[in-house]
Amino acid sequence: MDYQQQLVSLLGEDRVTTNPTVLVHHSHDESYHTPHLPDVVVFPQTAAEVSAILKLANEKRIAVTPFGLGTSLEGHAIPYAGGISMDFSLMNQVLEVRPQDFLVRVQPGVTRTQLNRELKKHGLFFSVDPGADATLGGMAATNASGTTSVRYGVMRDQVRDLEVVLADGRIIHTGSMTAKSSSGYHLTGMFVGSEGTLGVFTELTLRVYGIPEVTMAARASFPTVQDAVDTVVDILGAGIQVARIELVDERSIRQVNLYKETSYPENPTLFIEFHGSEQSLAHDIEFAQTIATEHGCTQFLFETDSKARAVLWDARHNLAYAFVHKSPGKKMMVTDVCVPFSELAGAVVDARQAIDRSGLDGAVLGHVGDGNYHAIVMIDVHDPEEMARAEALNAHLVEYALGRGGTCTGEHGVGVGKVKYQRKEHGAALDVMRSMKQVLDPNGILNPGKIFDK
Amino acid sequence: MDYQQQLVSLLGEDRVTTNPTVLVHHSHDESYHTPHLPDVVVFPQTAAEVSAILKLANEKRIAVTPFGLGTSLEGHAIPYAGGISMDFSLMNQVLEVRPQDFLVRVQPGVTRTQLNRELKKHGLFFSVDPGADATLGGMAATNASGTTSVRYGVMRDQVRDLEVVLADGRIIHTGSMTAKSSSGYHLTGMFVGSEGTLGVFTELTLRVYGIPEVTMAARASFPTVQDAVDTVVDILGAGIQVARIELVDERSIRQVNLYKETSYPENPTLFIEFHGSEQSLAHDIEFAQTIATEHGCTQFLFETDSKARAVLWDARHNLAYAFVHKSPGKKMMVTDVCVPFSELAGAVVDARQAIDRSGLDGAVLGHVGDGNYHAIVMIDVHDPEEMARAEALNAHLVEYALGRGGTCTGEHGVGVGKVKYQRKEHGAALDVMRSMKQVLDPNGILNPGKIFDK
Repeated sequence: MDYQQQLVSLLGEDRVTTNPTVLVHHSHDESYHTPHLPDVVVFPQTAAEVSAILKLANEKRIAVTPFGLGTSLEGHAIPYAGGISMDFSLMNQVLEVRPQDFLVRVQPGVTRTQLNRELKKHGLFFSVDPGADATLGGMAATNASGTTSVRYGVMRDQVRDLEVVLADGRIIHTGSMTAKSSSGYHLTGMFVGSEGTLGVFTELTLRVYGIPEVTMAARASFPTVQDAVDTVVDILGAGIQVARIELVDERSIRQVNLYKETSYPENPTLFIEFHGSEQSLAHDIEFAQTIATEHGCTQFLFETDSKARAVLWDARHNLAYAFVHKSPGKKMMVTDVCVPFSELAGAVVDARQAIDRSGLDGAVLGHVGDGNYHAIVMIDVHDPEEMARAEALNAHLVEYALGRGGTCTGEHGVGVGKVKYQRKEHGAALDVMRSMKQVLDPNGILNPGKIFDK
Repeated sequence: MDYQQQLVSLLGEDRVTTNPTVLVHHSHDESYHTPHLPDVVVFPQTAAEVSAILKLANEKRIAVTPFGLGTSLEGHAIPYAGGISMDFSLMNQVLEVRPQDFLVRVQPGVTRTQLNRELKKHGLFFSVDPGADATLGGMAATNASGTTSVRYGVMRDQVRDLEVVLADGRIIHTGSMTAKSSSGYHLTGMFVGSEGTLGVFTELTLRVYGIPEVTMAARASFPTVQDAVDTVVDILGAGIQVARIELVDERSIRQVNLYKETSYPENPTLFIEFHGSEQSLAHDIEFAQTIATEHGCTQFLFETDSKARAVLWDARHNLAYAFVHKSPGKKMMVTDVCVPFSELAGAVVDARQAIDRSGLDGAVLGHVGDGNYHAIVMIDVHDPEEMARAEALNAHLVEYALGRGGTCTGEHGVGVGKVKYQRKEHGAALDVMRSMKQVLDPNGILNPGKIFDK
């Protein structure tokens, strides 16, 4: 009996498919990376089923690539070695909300907006917001973050426990329900961000927060990127608890104005959000405005009402669309490096110059409280010359960051796109990572080709 | 040439010693665990020297136990297999302060108060406060935390990068200077808390914070432990940013009153500290007081002035001394479990009853924002019957926590004291930890007997 027939005997015919449409759906993500078909797609419903599938795959040396919703930007979910695409859409239950513990237990296929709908009933919310409505399993696998990590931390900071199925079918729990522990090695932290290369998640226990009493949003324009970044440094240094603080460069604001027929000041702009009580926010926003003014801020607007806040942040939200709209038929490449704070202003200016030099068009925006910034460029993936220019731009940004104590990916993960920079970034530590991979997945069946060369 | 002579040829005679007084100094820590002499103590000054020592030890199969200041509470620094005690007192330089990056680079022998003296010049502070003036290398090795982790996180949250020397002498860097990264496996998180069993730290890059504009302290008394814990849940749920929130039980307050001839209300008491701006704190403290009153708070006092704050927290600070004073010649056993929030009130009540049942005398206090609590009991380590009762008490508290989603150590680490609970807590995950140890330290030279049975 071949392995696909064995999969059918494990899961039944309904949950094992080679339907071409389904294979195509599991052949790509949201990135510009080349698609590749899996040989078969499976839809497990329990950890025991995942374990049985992995045991079989391990024995037969079949590659297994976990698949959430395919929102990855670095090709994580693309099964380049063929084999099994393991789809978690049937493991999408919020298993338990523990309001007094500020914890929730979920299956990996739950999306963040689905979770937040459930949490809202309890006055709680899940903090990590990468933009896309990704699955929590996928977000943990890539250590996703986004606009709110300056206040609440990244995905790794929210995960208290993972149920993980190892390549040989063993099922382990990596943590506990406690806020902290000094017991044993921090396996939770190691599996978060392991991109499906060390094990497959079947359950996550996540930290959640009380919905803030009040949310305020602000938008501030500055003469230069340096002024904007200096403002951020002073705001954070003063201990003002911003929930989000985003930088958008002037070229990008101009594109939004063209696309939306708006008239935002075409300057480097900070988009800020504050979470707290009414009184403490009133003080925080006044303090932030004073700091911004000291750094030459030319316009500082703020709103509390949810609709008015959305209007204020509209330019930030429309940024990607403004460029997509301008480039029908092209795909978006989103670069993703992170540098120490002190390097950020220079890095953003350099990124803008590098885009301009490349002849491509695009935006520069940053989760500026983290030193994490993106260049978004539209590329024709069928034009080798344009692809080469985009790759060269990406390489330039990575080299710039690595040369300044930075990292080649702040939040999107390595996938296939950043494999080539791993040795330069990690040096001899990459060998330690490889030895972890070797000991947990000796046959190399788990998402091969991701993080490491095959 | 025997290995001790080889050590002399590597480091010179001044930095290799078998002086009996020095050996005794490196044979114990602050715990009740039985001391054991090393065969030799070395004082490296550079990562290259550490590497050379480890290469030699690895080749000759000599145990190496890192030693900071010996403030461990679970026997981490005790060299039970003899061999080399590696003392980091000559690697005690603050190498670089990067104020704009909120980062500092230090050698492992720097103590936290030494670091804070240096940081103060820049308006910065290092947040982790385990009580003892431990070295930062030791604090990273045990994933230490303490009173401030409710606001700023534990040691693991502060470490951006480690320079680690592996058992075979390889020198790696585990991270970068950035606030976040999704590049490769999270080795930093795995080495933090590895208790010298996976590698030896020779440099740490740590996150630091701006000194808050204002610090306020409060003390609140409650009719029951449950009322106090409910207050904590509501304060944290409301998003009030407490910097510290400590619970002390009524028996402990009574002991302080006896020792200091004070007249604190002999009730379960919360000690709270707030960091922020004057206006936001005024609001926060008013809000916290309202919540406390709703839960039956009988006395709520607060102070801003640094001297008055110290007076207000005096009972908390004197707690251990009050019991030590009462029990001359005895040693202190500090238990250290952590439970999910919702289990905390029950756990603290249970801990008090368990102490009373044991016939030992002691305090219960908790880092209540984390669900982490300690029983402090005074024991005569030469009285086997009293030791047995203390061990039974410790075992009871661990079983209680593990049965409720907790951990056997919130912040002190496994050392030798919690080895026997590792299988129960981690199940099959312990085998994964062992395989990490096996691959990085195949000869088992690094701090043998800690975390795992030998």
